[in-house]
Amino acid sequence: MSSDETLQDNSFEHFSGMYRHPRDYSSDLPVTGAWQVDDPVGNREFHSVGAGRPFALEGGGFLPEVTVAYETWGVLSPKADNAILLCHALTGDSHAFGEVGKGHRTPGWWNGVVGRGCAIDPDRHFIVCANVLGGCQGSTGPASIDPTTGKAYGASFPTVTVRDMVRSQVAVADKLGIDQWLSVVGGSMGGMQALEWAVMCPGRVRSVVPIATALAASAWQIAWSAVARTALAIDPRFRDGDYYEAEPGDGPHAGLAIARAIAQIHYRSDTSFRDRFGREPVDPQSVFGRWDRFQVESYLDYQGEKLVRRFDANSYLVLNRAMDLHDLARDRGSLEEALGRLIGIKFLTLSISSDILYPIAQQVDLQNAIQVSGGFCDHHVVESEDGHDGFLLATEKVGGYLGAFLDEVGSDV
Amino acid sequence: MSSDETLQDNSFEHFSGMYRHPRDYSSDLPVTGAWQVDDPVGNREFHSVGAGRPFALEGGGFLPEVTVAYETWGVLSPKADNAILLCHALTGDSHAFGEVGKGHRTPGWWNGVVGRGCAIDPDRHFIVCANVLGGCQGSTGPASIDPTTGKAYGASFPTVTVRDMVRSQVAVADKLGIDQWLSVVGGSMGGMQALEWAVMCPGRVRSVVPIATALAASAWQIAWSAVARTALAIDPRFRDGDYYEAEPGDGPHAGLAIARAIAQIHYRSDTSFRDRFGREPVDPQSVFGRWDRFQVESYLDYQGEKLVRRFDANSYLVLNRAMDLHDLARDRGSLEEALGRLIGIKFLTLSISSDILYPIAQQVDLQNAIQVSGGFCDHHVVESEDGHDGFLLATEKVGGYLGAFLDEVGSDV
Repeated sequence: MSSDETLQDNSFEHFSGMYRHPRDYSSDLPVTGAWQVDDPVGNREFHSVGAGRPFALEGGGFLPEVTVAYETWGVLSPKADNAILLCHALTGDSHAFGEVGKGHRTPGWWNGVVGRGCAIDPDRHFIVCANVLGGCQGSTGPASIDPTTGKAYGASFPTVTVRDMVRSQVAVADKLGIDQWLSVVGGSMGGMQALEWAVMCPGRVRSVVPIATALAASAWQIAWSAVARTALAIDPRFRDGDYYEAEPGDGPHAGLAIARAIAQIHYRSDTSFRDRFGREPVDPQSVFGRWDRFQVESYLDYQGEKLVRRFDANSYLVLNRAMDLHDLARDRGSLEEALGRLIGIKFLTLSISSDILYPIAQQVDLQNAIQVSGGFCDHHVVESEDGHDGFLLATEKVGGYLGAFLDEVGSDV
Repeated sequence: MSSDETLQDNSFEHFSGMYRHPRDYSSDLPVTGAWQVDDPVGNREFHSVGAGRPFALEGGGFLPEVTVAYETWGVLSPKADNAILLCHALTGDSHAFGEVGKGHRTPGWWNGVVGRGCAIDPDRHFIVCANVLGGCQGSTGPASIDPTTGKAYGASFPTVTVRDMVRSQVAVADKLGIDQWLSVVGGSMGGMQALEWAVMCPGRVRSVVPIATALAASAWQIAWSAVARTALAIDPRFRDGDYYEAEPGDGPHAGLAIARAIAQIHYRSDTSFRDRFGREPVDPQSVFGRWDRFQVESYLDYQGEKLVRRFDANSYLVLNRAMDLHDLARDRGSLEEALGRLIGIKFLTLSISSDILYPIAQQVDLQNAIQVSGGFCDHHVVESEDGHDGFLLATEKVGGYLGAFLDEVGSDV
């Protein structure tokens, strides 16, 4: 996910000249923005996967227990045939729909795609969104308490994969009595989950909508991810991942903010930055100092600090690594073998015209691979200058394609 | 500049699995890769600008003295009408042409464009390339000794601009007896210098070839630059810029390597990374560990370490900031006023088809602005999958356009 919330921040005033040096952060910043067990639950519900038994991981080892935080909207139909699973992206969480409120620091990341009269409509659909395994908004992640030590996992949290995320979501589907999703929908990392749902549980999905995503993380995506993870890890306040007992203001704020800034740039586009920021300095009277800021720099500072308040640095590492490891073909013989299971599932994939991180060619590859394997996959390009973030920001166009597709799938019972 | 040298590194063997953690660097790494006064001079010559008098800077203040290191190839014609100035990019230096040798850690960054029988030919042209002010390969920069303290400038080195760089080069032209360059040629930051040469000294250039560059740094370019500078600055071994007295292995290696990695990614393209690295892990038996590496990550580590051995972290900050400040219109009333001085100078600008950092639209803007102001500017797009680095790597195509242009300018005396 990324900065859907920036939609509301179109004035420079919010972030002008906050910092004079890269290490200057507010002393009240929490060391982790993770949701904590004594925070308000908001709209969350919780499911203890396997009734608290150990959860084995694809990469080896296990977690002693896994809890999944999820939200739902709408009512499951008597036939249980109107359920839609929304899978969130990197910095998203279960709050796909709704407002800011107690327990929810951000508005729903897909407001406008989800909503009354929208493509995904709580009056018609039963909508579910779960915080991913490894995340930090209620599901088990590095900031959670390890029951075997009584302390936060921190550096000891194991590598999780997109397949592990999906297995934890399967448990939620079971609990909710959903044998088959009408659709599993997500963008970016959410699209990776949607694809894995199809391959891992082909009988449990009628349709899948992977948006701005790929069959496997590309070398370029891995490179971006790696540089962000490395920047985070060299922040001395990251303390190799064990920073939870540090004082407020002494957490890995700078490292996480840099990782966020890197993302914030390649999630967008040259055009969108040019139109929004140009070359405006924060202070026109002071431009030649070493750390004098252009507005675009101040914007990145501001976005970094916002993420620090609601995210966890270890989760950022863990989820980025899960994305790098995403490869639909891994340990399945070949891509063709993996996709051969999907016949009968309807796919829609969407591209964002200005997305440099998940370029259109990847979704064309996805469509082709599914069709070559005998499946059905529709593909549209959403015109947007917002780069990869277009999947969050171009709600009207995304919703248009998605709504038409879901109507077709839904009428096809 | 960037990794021209990677041309020679097409095997994975060179950089497989060097590191297991982002902070692991060789203990023999120098704290700065700057050329030092007791290093071999190689092909360098030196000019003391203004005979050692203080050098005033555009941003205010001055440097107590400025030395420019430069190299030349070929012979100045009796009429002094065959001189070409090459302006290097961010991590380049005066060694535009030639081999690795004592005092020169890298081969010429434009071998193939420069050379016998090439577009720029030492048998026909008198070729000059100077290390920029603020650089680290012989010209005055942050790693140089401040004569007022007897220690390296470090954090006290002032902000320099592209205009300051050009003024230091004017002194070299004067020394060499060059009243008018046949052409001033450069890519990226080198193209910024070429443009400033035209506006600052229109009578001293017959032609100008700005490649893969812009009239002014864009918001996106500033954002990338800022995130790299910030990452460098939070490396605790950067010590706010005063690291020259640290022990080998204790310098800002990690920070500089991250800055380099960020550049290395957006200098290239999704396609070039995909074709070269795919998803190959360093060790196929070990992929799920937190810091297990894909080959592309190991490549970035390797490139980072290479840069650390030949560059200076403070120079990286200073030159990046100079690029962010690049704006041909600054303090000149308007862009039209600035460009109005250029009538009679022939321009050629080149774009790289896959360049996301300096996209084609910027060179189209450049051409249009010059033509609207009554000047002449030709423009070609070089087909290359190497992104921004195409200006260094696509030597045959770049040389083709450049050679034809120079022949026309040269015959037009």
